[in-house]
Amino acid sequence: MNACILAIGSEMLTPFRVDTNSLFITERLNAIGYDVRLKAVVADDIDELARVIEGALAWADVIVVTGGLGPTEDDITRDAVARVLDTPLDLDEAIVERLRERFAKRGMTMPEINRRQAMVPRGATVLPNANGTAPGLWLERGKTAIVLLPGPPREMKPMLETLIGERLAPRSGGRGLFRRVLKIAGRAESDVDAQVQPVYGKWTKQAVPISTTILAVLVQIELHLTAAAEHRADADAVLEAAVAELRNALGASVFSDDGRNLEVVVGDLLRERTLTIAVAESCTGGLLASRLTDVPGSSDYVERGVVCYSNRAKTELVGVPEEMIREHGAVSEPVAQAMAAGIRARAGTNIGIGITGIAGPGGGTAEKPVGTVAVAVVGDEETRVRTFQFLGGRDMVKFQAAQSALNMTRLMVTKASAGREWSERKN
Amino acid sequence: MNACILAIGSEMLTPFRVDTNSLFITERLNAIGYDVRLKAVVADDIDELARVIEGALAWADVIVVTGGLGPTEDDITRDAVARVLDTPLDLDEAIVERLRERFAKRGMTMPEINRRQAMVPRGATVLPNANGTAPGLWLERGKTAIVLLPGPPREMKPMLETLIGERLAPRSGGRGLFRRVLKIAGRAESDVDAQVQPVYGKWTKQAVPISTTILAVLVQIELHLTAAAEHRADADAVLEAAVAELRNALGASVFSDDGRNLEVVVGDLLRERTLTIAVAESCTGGLLASRLTDVPGSSDYVERGVVCYSNRAKTELVGVPEEMIREHGAVSEPVAQAMAAGIRARAGTNIGIGITGIAGPGGGTAEKPVGTVAVAVVGDEETRVRTFQFLGGRDMVKFQAAQSALNMTRLMVTKASAGREWSERKN
Repeated sequence: MNACILAIGSEMLTPFRVDTNSLFITERLNAIGYDVRLKAVVADDIDELARVIEGALAWADVIVVTGGLGPTEDDITRDAVARVLDTPLDLDEAIVERLRERFAKRGMTMPEINRRQAMVPRGATVLPNANGTAPGLWLERGKTAIVLLPGPPREMKPMLETLIGERLAPRSGGRGLFRRVLKIAGRAESDVDAQVQPVYGKWTKQAVPISTTILAVLVQIELHLTAAAEHRADADAVLEAAVAELRNALGASVFSDDGRNLEVVVGDLLRERTLTIAVAESCTGGLLASRLTDVPGSSDYVERGVVCYSNRAKTELVGVPEEMIREHGAVSEPVAQAMAAGIRARAGTNIGIGITGIAGPGGGTAEKPVGTVAVAVVGDEETRVRTFQFLGGRDMVKFQAAQSALNMTRLMVTKASAGREWSERKN
Repeated sequence: MNACILAIGSEMLTPFRVDTNSLFITERLNAIGYDVRLKAVVADDIDELARVIEGALAWADVIVVTGGLGPTEDDITRDAVARVLDTPLDLDEAIVERLRERFAKRGMTMPEINRRQAMVPRGATVLPNANGTAPGLWLERGKTAIVLLPGPPREMKPMLETLIGERLAPRSGGRGLFRRVLKIAGRAESDVDAQVQPVYGKWTKQAVPISTTILAVLVQIELHLTAAAEHRADADAVLEAAVAELRNALGASVFSDDGRNLEVVVGDLLRERTLTIAVAESCTGGLLASRLTDVPGSSDYVERGVVCYSNRAKTELVGVPEEMIREHGAVSEPVAQAMAAGIRARAGTNIGIGITGIAGPGGGTAEKPVGTVAVAVVGDEETRVRTFQFLGGRDMVKFQAAQSALNMTRLMVTKASAGREWSERKN
């Protein structure tokens, strides 16, 4: 089964934007046996879009179009599809009613312009959108299904999931591609690849073959395993064995094989063990606290955080002695440890984290260049302190520092040691 | 002049890869007056690619194809173009010779398979590739130029630069596309569009026309203005006038017209006025502090932040009276204001911000549903407190709350009032 994915919007034809929706759509379509043969970004131009849809109708089993369903003149997806299918657009009063209610809930009157969003090509099925004003649309022409979805990911994703289950999977009948992702912290990509290549190389030749891709996303290494099989159960069996073999080879550096991010993994570990945590951050400036609290329910274990950006704040908020800062410098292991111990004592939590470093671009010295970060994790039974030398710009240093603090916490809580990390500084 | 950019390769149709070559190509083509109307990623399939090229020939002034010029069976770009143009492929002995030399220089014999790379559609001009084996090709059909370039960026980029200077710029007639972006906070997309459409509508007809796109990125509205002009100076003049007119229409809700994000704008305002800031966050969990400290040099004005996730932390860290929390609830304007005043007093800063709300998905009530957020900004001369009702998931609520706090700070510092914000709750 062949799929075509179209993203509509002139803004995605500038040098500043990439279409990322198509990655999610590809993954979900692959899983139910659709092979994506073409994806395109099309300008807000009814002629262009009509031409591309016309072309895809000749071969595609499904055409998924995202974007161009808003209320403005620029939003031409409905019109383009109606033109290609040579069908009129009718005003759907039920959609108008839902839009009115949505605006009323915020104490606003629906602008007249939003009526455009209620125009439906005749014969289309309206797909409810729980998270926005633009409903989706489902149409069929010959063997081809045409799916129109809004562009914002949080609106598009749940709508696609529903469609996959109710309409697209039943139509496919193809060999699905099934995936597992291992996420790894604290190691270099080339190092991981050298170690696991002999392991995954042989999987391409088995009855249910697995192809493997290694990917470095920021400082997180991911191994993507893809099995092609008629049934999910067959794929799951070989993938399960493959994951076990990779976990065995890579040890504690693997932090998830089910898609969870590191802050979720750490949160789950804390909740299972009824542990609480508090954090004191300097160079990460609140990013660690923000990532920890991105997880729903994190108020169960996050008690507080402080961002002690100034030296005075380090002393006042977590009791770092002024003379310690003078002697060792604000970016030092003693200060990181004092921050962790200080926040832990004041918050009365099981775990305290301290992070201090130089995020850049300014502030580096020969001895402590930009990217130098000291991280301390103080627990009920143990204290771990490390100094890292991260590469990259300010954002990258902040992310890596928060990631390393989370990883150190994970390893301490699970009583594991991952050995020396690749970005760790030799002291 | 209209351009189409095609990337060839099934690997870019997996969930893991995006085509980034097209961003570079777009930027270079825009600068010499080509408007990119369509970009697509096509599988390694001669039928698919021929169909897409055929479609683009109908309207494009230039079609830039990257990838599919390697020596293997999968590399089908040459064949697809020859088929569409109905022209035979000839072996170019000069290319074979250069390939042989290239291999010989490394002490290797050229594999027979590489002869494929010397197959040239009749009538094509061969474009030398200084950094790889695949030469590029230039063909013309009617008014359309077809450019075939290798996929690896370090091979493609210098070849495109040469082509731009020698062939593409002279054909274009020299009208370049020049851009400005206005960013807007605190208003709804449809509302902004209704207000500015009468303003920007007329610009499409002037001597140096400006096209305008409205875009909602999270809760931030962007107006992208693109002027087509022979010379940058002409474009800049009309864009400057357009920006002034839009600023005049939209008032204080426009926070930048030079690409700066809100945290950068706020940071610049604080630095100019030598003001300092400290923040007390509950539901945003450190996100506001993290965004403020994403800005290089923010240590000049960010003194500290606290994340008081528990009620105890609110009392201990910023002195919110327990009885105030009991009486009004932790999510209330009095508590937000007490947090802002408390952190300001303890940090000794000019400005204090307090944010308390329900990020969800749990914790909502009928009176205070998920998305209810109270924000207070306390300054030297003024206090502003507002309650918002945000839509969306946890991440969205966090982002919007931080964005609103930044925007309230910007408006207070500039002594502006933007009137009631669209997401504000009636109390």
